[in-house]
Amino acid sequence: MEVLKRRAFCLWPPSGRSGAVCFTSKAYSTVFSPQPPCSRTESQNREAFRQAVVNTLERRLFYIPSFKIYGGVAGLYDYGPPGCAVKANILAFWRQHFVLEEKMLEVDCPCVTPGIVLEASGHVDKFTDLMVKDEKTGACHRADHLLKDFCKDKLEKDHELSAEEAAELRHILAVLDDFSAEEICAKIKEYRITAPDTKNSLSNPYPFNLMFQTSIGPSGSSSGYMRPETAQGIFVNFKDLYYYNGNKLPFAAAQIGQAFRNEISPRQGLLRVREFTLAEIEHFVDPKDKSFPKFSEVSDLELFIFPREDQMSGQPTRRLTIGEAVSQGIIDNETLGYYIGRVYLFLTQLGIAKDRLHFRQHLGNEMAHYSVDCWDAEIESSYGWVECVGIADRSAYDLQAHADRSSVPLVAYEKYEQPREVEKLTIVPVKKELGLAFKGDHKMVVEALEVMGEKEALKMKASLEDKGEATFRVCALNKVVTIKNSMVSISKEKRKEHQRVFTPSVIEPSFGIGRIIYCLYEHSFYTRPSKCGDEQVNVFRFSPLVAPIKCTVFPLVQNQEYEEVAKQIAKSLTASGISYKIDVTGTSIGKRYARTDELGVPFAITVDSTSSVTVRERDSKQQIRVKVDEVVSVVKQLTDGSVSWGGVLLRYPTHLP
Amino acid sequence: MEVLKRRAFCLWPPSGRSGAVCFTSKAYSTVFSPQPPCSRTESQNREAFRQAVVNTLERRLFYIPSFKIYGGVAGLYDYGPPGCAVKANILAFWRQHFVLEEKMLEVDCPCVTPGIVLEASGHVDKFTDLMVKDEKTGACHRADHLLKDFCKDKLEKDHELSAEEAAELRHILAVLDDFSAEEICAKIKEYRITAPDTKNSLSNPYPFNLMFQTSIGPSGSSSGYMRPETAQGIFVNFKDLYYYNGNKLPFAAAQIGQAFRNEISPRQGLLRVREFTLAEIEHFVDPKDKSFPKFSEVSDLELFIFPREDQMSGQPTRRLTIGEAVSQGIIDNETLGYYIGRVYLFLTQLGIAKDRLHFRQHLGNEMAHYSVDCWDAEIESSYGWVECVGIADRSAYDLQAHADRSSVPLVAYEKYEQPREVEKLTIVPVKKELGLAFKGDHKMVVEALEVMGEKEALKMKASLEDKGEATFRVCALNKVVTIKNSMVSISKEKRKEHQRVFTPSVIEPSFGIGRIIYCLYEHSFYTRPSKCGDEQVNVFRFSPLVAPIKCTVFPLVQNQEYEEVAKQIAKSLTASGISYKIDVTGTSIGKRYARTDELGVPFAITVDSTSSVTVRERDSKQQIRVKVDEVVSVVKQLTDGSVSWGGVLLRYPTHLP
Repeated sequence: MEVLKRRAFCLWPPSGRSGAVCFTSKAYSTVFSPQPPCSRTESQNREAFRQAVVNTLERRLFYIPSFKIYGGVAGLYDYGPPGCAVKANILAFWRQHFVLEEKMLEVDCPCVTPGIVLEASGHVDKFTDLMVKDEKTGACHRADHLLKDFCKDKLEKDHELSAEEAAELRHILAVLDDFSAEEICAKIKEYRITAPDTKNSLSNPYPFNLMFQTSIGPSGSSSGYMRPETAQGIFVNFKDLYYYNGNKLPFAAAQIGQAFRNEISPRQGLLRVREFTLAEIEHFVDPKDKSFPKFSEVSDLELFIFPREDQMSGQPTRRLTIGEAVSQGIIDNETLGYYIGRVYLFLTQLGIAKDRLHFRQHLGNEMAHYSVDCWDAEIESSYGWVECVGIADRSAYDLQAHADRSSVPLVAYEKYEQPREVEKLTIVPVKKELGLAFKGDHKMVVEALEVMGEKEALKMKASLEDKGEATFRVCALNKVVTIKNSMVSISKEKRKEHQRVFTPSVIEPSFGIGRIIYCLYEHSFYTRPSKCGDEQVNVFRFSPLVAPIKCTVFPLVQNQEYEEVAKQIAKSLTASGISYKIDVTGTSIGKRYARTDELGVPFAITVDSTSSVTVRERDSKQQIRVKVDEVVSVVKQLTDGSVSWGGVLLRYPTHLP
Repeated sequence: MEVLKRRAFCLWPPSGRSGAVCFTSKAYSTVFSPQPPCSRTESQNREAFRQAVVNTLERRLFYIPSFKIYGGVAGLYDYGPPGCAVKANILAFWRQHFVLEEKMLEVDCPCVTPGIVLEASGHVDKFTDLMVKDEKTGACHRADHLLKDFCKDKLEKDHELSAEEAAELRHILAVLDDFSAEEICAKIKEYRITAPDTKNSLSNPYPFNLMFQTSIGPSGSSSGYMRPETAQGIFVNFKDLYYYNGNKLPFAAAQIGQAFRNEISPRQGLLRVREFTLAEIEHFVDPKDKSFPKFSEVSDLELFIFPREDQMSGQPTRRLTIGEAVSQGIIDNETLGYYIGRVYLFLTQLGIAKDRLHFRQHLGNEMAHYSVDCWDAEIESSYGWVECVGIADRSAYDLQAHADRSSVPLVAYEKYEQPREVEKLTIVPVKKELGLAFKGDHKMVVEALEVMGEKEALKMKASLEDKGEATFRVCALNKVVTIKNSMVSISKEKRKEHQRVFTPSVIEPSFGIGRIIYCLYEHSFYTRPSKCGDEQVNVFRFSPLVAPIKCTVFPLVQNQEYEEVAKQIAKSLTASGISYKIDVTGTSIGKRYARTDELGVPFAITVDSTSSVTVRERDSKQQIRVKVDEVVSVVKQLTDGSVSWGGVLLRYPTHLP
C-alpha cells in the first residue's frame, strides 16, 4: 500500500456534486489560495451528524474502544457483535468479487516480519512522521499537527490578524505537507508554538518510525516489526506464485490481514487507528503490455473522476466513463482502469453513495518516483473526503527491491517464437577459484556476480584487465570483496536468445477495510420519526449483503402457538445459514422494529397467525403476507440477492399495517 | 486459552483403537514405567508418511516457509493459495457451526495489547519457558528440550548403559514436565550437557517470556505485547456483552484472530509456530447452574474419551456417550459436555477420522488451581497425539482477575422473585472528605472502598475505631493511602436484597486452527496407482466443504466448441460462487485428474460433447452424465451438501470411462 498521505477536508452537508470543489490535495492548495475549510454551520452540522452516527454505533456495540475497563488505548478499537458481522460480510463479498471472480491467488502471511524485509521495502528508513516532544513532560506530538492547529486556531480566533498575516497562515496550511523538518522547526520557533496542554517548550522535530518494533526469537538479536501493510508478503512470494500460475503473466495475488501503524497521536476516531485490516491485491503484468482482456466489462461505467490537471486548474470533478478516461490518456492503462471500475462496483454494491465517491489522481509530488500513475478512491464523510482505496501502478519497484536485497531473481519470462540474436554480456564466475577464495560464502559471491548489471560488469572487466583485480560489493554478505582475474570471465558475445527476461510491473489496489466500513456507516445512517411521531428513530439502510443480522422473528403477542411457529422458523433460518434475532418479549411491535432498524436488519418476520406471517422491509416499511412454510425460502432469496423486494411485492399480497 | 503444555508422542501407523495405550500425559508416565516411545520401523513409517504429505503440501503451495527468499524465519509459515482457501472454508464453517447455530456474540479485538491487561491475566509473570544460553555464542535453547534429547539419545545409542542408568533416564523423561528450574539445572550439570552444535558450556536455566513485546505510542513508556491468545479481548468486554445480551446468562462470545508466541526454538513444522490463528469461545454461565438446554442434542454421541482415572490406571481410551460421561460424573457438567459434543461434530464433519480423535481429561497437576475440569481434543498425527482444541471450565478466574485489576465489577445479576433479608456490610465513602484529601485521585479511592472485601472492611472498621485511621491500598493508583474516620462509614446492617450478584464462570473451547488444518491434511492424504499403474498419485480426500477448489472444468480435447462450453460453465460457476480450475491444455485427461486430485478437488467436469458432460468424483472415480445446462446446479448441490454423490448417482446415468 502506498504510504497514506493524511487529508481531511470538508464538504458538508452532502449537497450534490455540481460545482463542488474538493480541497483534497496539497498541490491544489498550493496553487490556488485556499478558502477557509468550511463555514461554522456546515462544521456544526457535520459534527452533529457524526455524533448521532457514532453514538448509535457505540451504543449498539458496532464498535467498542479497546480495553475500555483499563481506560482504553488511543487508536485501538474492537468490533462488537454487529460490527464484526458487517466486517465478515464485507470480507466475504471482497473474496467473491475479487479473489473468486478474478481468479486471484490468495495468500496469508504472518504479521511478524523480519527487519531485512522492511529494510528492502524502504519502510525502516522512510515510514516516519515528524515528531516533537514536550521538553518537560516528554509527551509526544506530531509536528505538522501542531503547526496546522496553530494556524487554523489563529485564523479562526484572532480577529486582529492583518491581511498579510492571515495570508501567510493560509499559505502554510496549503504547503505544510511539503515542508522539510527544518522548515517546520523554523515555523514552530517563529510562532513560539508550545505544547498544547502544558504550554511547555518543544524539542526540535525528528522523524519517528511508525512501525511497532519487536524482536524475533529469544536472543534479542533478530529485529522484527509488525507489518505496516500486507503487500510485502506477496512480493517475497512472487517466484512461487508465478510458478503456481504456470509461469504465466498477468496474474494477481491477494491478501487480507491485519496491519499495524504506531501513530504518534491518533485522531479522527475509526479513521486513524493503530491496527487495521487491509485487503491488498498485487496484479503482476508485463510492463510492455498493460491491456486487460475484460476491460470492455467496465469501460462503460460512468463515475466521478478528478484528474491531476483538473485539481491543478481548480476544476470540479467530472463524470467520465472509464473507457473515455483510458482512451484520453487520463488513466494510464487498461489494467489500472479495469481495477478502478471493479473498485467502483465493489464500493457501490456495498452501499457507498455513487455521488459521494470519486477517484482522485495523485499529483506528481504525491507519488513516489517509481510510480507510473496512482488513483485514490475517496469517499465523502463528515470528516471530509477519506482515502479508502489506493490503486497504484508501482512499476517494477517492489520486486526489484527484494531481488536486489535477497539476490533471488524475481523475474518473468517471455518465450520467443523464433530465437533472436543479440549481443550480450556474458559473466561466467569460475566457481572453483571463488570456492577456494571465499569458502562458505562463495555461493553468494557467485550469485552476486551473475546478477551484476551491465554497467558494473564492464567496469569490473576494465579493472580486471587493468589491475588484475577489482573490488565488488556483495549485498547478501554485506561486505566488499576483491575479485581477481582468475575468478570470473566477462565478455561480450553474440548469442541466440530464446526468451525475454524482465521484472513485472505491479498494479496494486489496496483497501482500508475499516475506513470503508466507517464511511458505509455514515452513508447508511438516517433518522425518521417513530410511529407515534414523538421521537426520532435511527436507521441503518444496510443492504442484505452487508446487514449484520438478516432478519428478525417476532411473535406479535405472547402466545404459545405463535412462539412455536417463531421457533420453527428460527430453526429453519439457522439451517439455511441466515442470521436472525428472535424477540419473544411482549414489547410493542413498533419498539421491536425500532430496536432492530437501528441495527440495520433489513427484514422482519412477524408471526401473527399459525399459517401465514407478515414480512416487513425496513426502509419502505412495506409488508407482505407469506405462508409459514415459504417464508424462509423468501428471506433466503432476498438476502442472497436472487430476488429483490420489488420482485417479492409482485408475488405476494401486500399487508396493510 | 489454557497455556498449552507440550506433548508429542507416537502411535504409528494408525492401527485401530483396541488396546492402544496413549502416552499423552506426564502423570501417566510418572505412575507407570514408560515404554520406549515407539519402535524403529514405526518411527520410519510415520516419518516417511509425513515427508510424503509435507512434500505435496509444499510443492502445491498449501503452505510456504515465510520470507523464504531471505532464508526464512523459524516458526513462521505462509498459507499459499490452496492452503488459504482451506483455511477460509474451515473458518466459515466454524462461524456457521458455532457463532450462527449457537447465536454467539462475535467480537474482533486488536492483537496489540497493553501490558496491564496481560499482567492481570498472569501472562507477564507466567507465560514462560525455561531457557539456557550457549555461553560462548549466546545461542538459546529450551532447557527441557536439551535434557529430553540427551536422555533419548543416550537410551537409543549407548549400548553400554546399565539397567539402573537406563531406568533413571526413563524416569527423567517421564517426570521432566514437573521439574523445577533447579532440578533441570542440576541434571544438566550432572550429565555435563553442552550446547547441541558447538558443545560449549551452558548458562543456568532461566524463564523466558514467550510474548512478543513492543511499545505502544511514540514515548516508549507504554509497554505492549502481541496477544498470546484472543480470550482476554472477550473478558475485558464482558460488561458490554452482558448488556448486549439483555443482561441475561448464559451467553457465549467468540473471537477468531491471530495470536503470537515467541517460541525459543520452534520444532515440529506447522504444529509449533510463532504466529497462528485461534478461534476461541467464552461461554459465561451461572456457577450454580451449568445445565444446558440443548444438551439432549449431543448426549447420544458416542466418542473416545480418556478420563483422568483411566490415564492413571493405565487403561486404554473408552467409547462412551456424552450423556453417560456426564451422568457418571466423568465430565463435570452439561455445558462442558455439550461443547465436547459440538467440537466432536465440528472436527469429524471437517474430515478428522473418528477413530483418531479422542478427548483427554487433564490430570490434577496439569490444571491451573482455579480450573474445575479441562479436556483436550487430541488428534492423532505422525507426530503423535496433538492437542488441537482445549475445552476448559475456568471458573470465575479470568473475570475476577480483570475486575480486581481494573476496579470495574465484572458481574452478573440474578433477580429474586421475592426480596430476601440479609445482614450485609455497608460501606459508605464520604465523598466530600475524600475529595478534599485526595483531589484528582478521589474517584479511584471511592471506587476501591466500595468494592473492598468483607474481611478487609471489618479490619478497617476496627482500625478506624481504634486509631482513628487506617492504611488502605488502592490498586488503581498503585499506592497505599491513609483513610481517616471521617472519610468512610462502615456498618453491618440488615438489608433487603432484590438480587444476587455473582461473577460468572466461564467455559472456554479454544481451537488451534493451524493444528486442526495440519492434522486434517494428514487424515485426508493417501496415494493410489496412476491409470497406467507406473507411478503413485497423491490424493487429498477433502470433503466439498473443505476443498480449496470445488471442481475442475476440462475440455476433453483442444477444440473450439468444447472450449466455448467450458467457458460458459466456468462463468456460471463463478456466478454461483463455486471456485473452480479450468485447464484447456491438451494434456491427457488422466494427468489433469492427477494434478487436481493432489489439490483435493472433489469433482471434475469433462466437456466431451456440446450437450452433456461427464462429472467425475475424485475418490470413487465414478462418473455420471449430466446435461450442460444442469451441471452447475448439480455441482452446487454437491458442494453445499444438499445432496450426496450417492444421491446424484441415483438421478443421473453413470458413465464408464
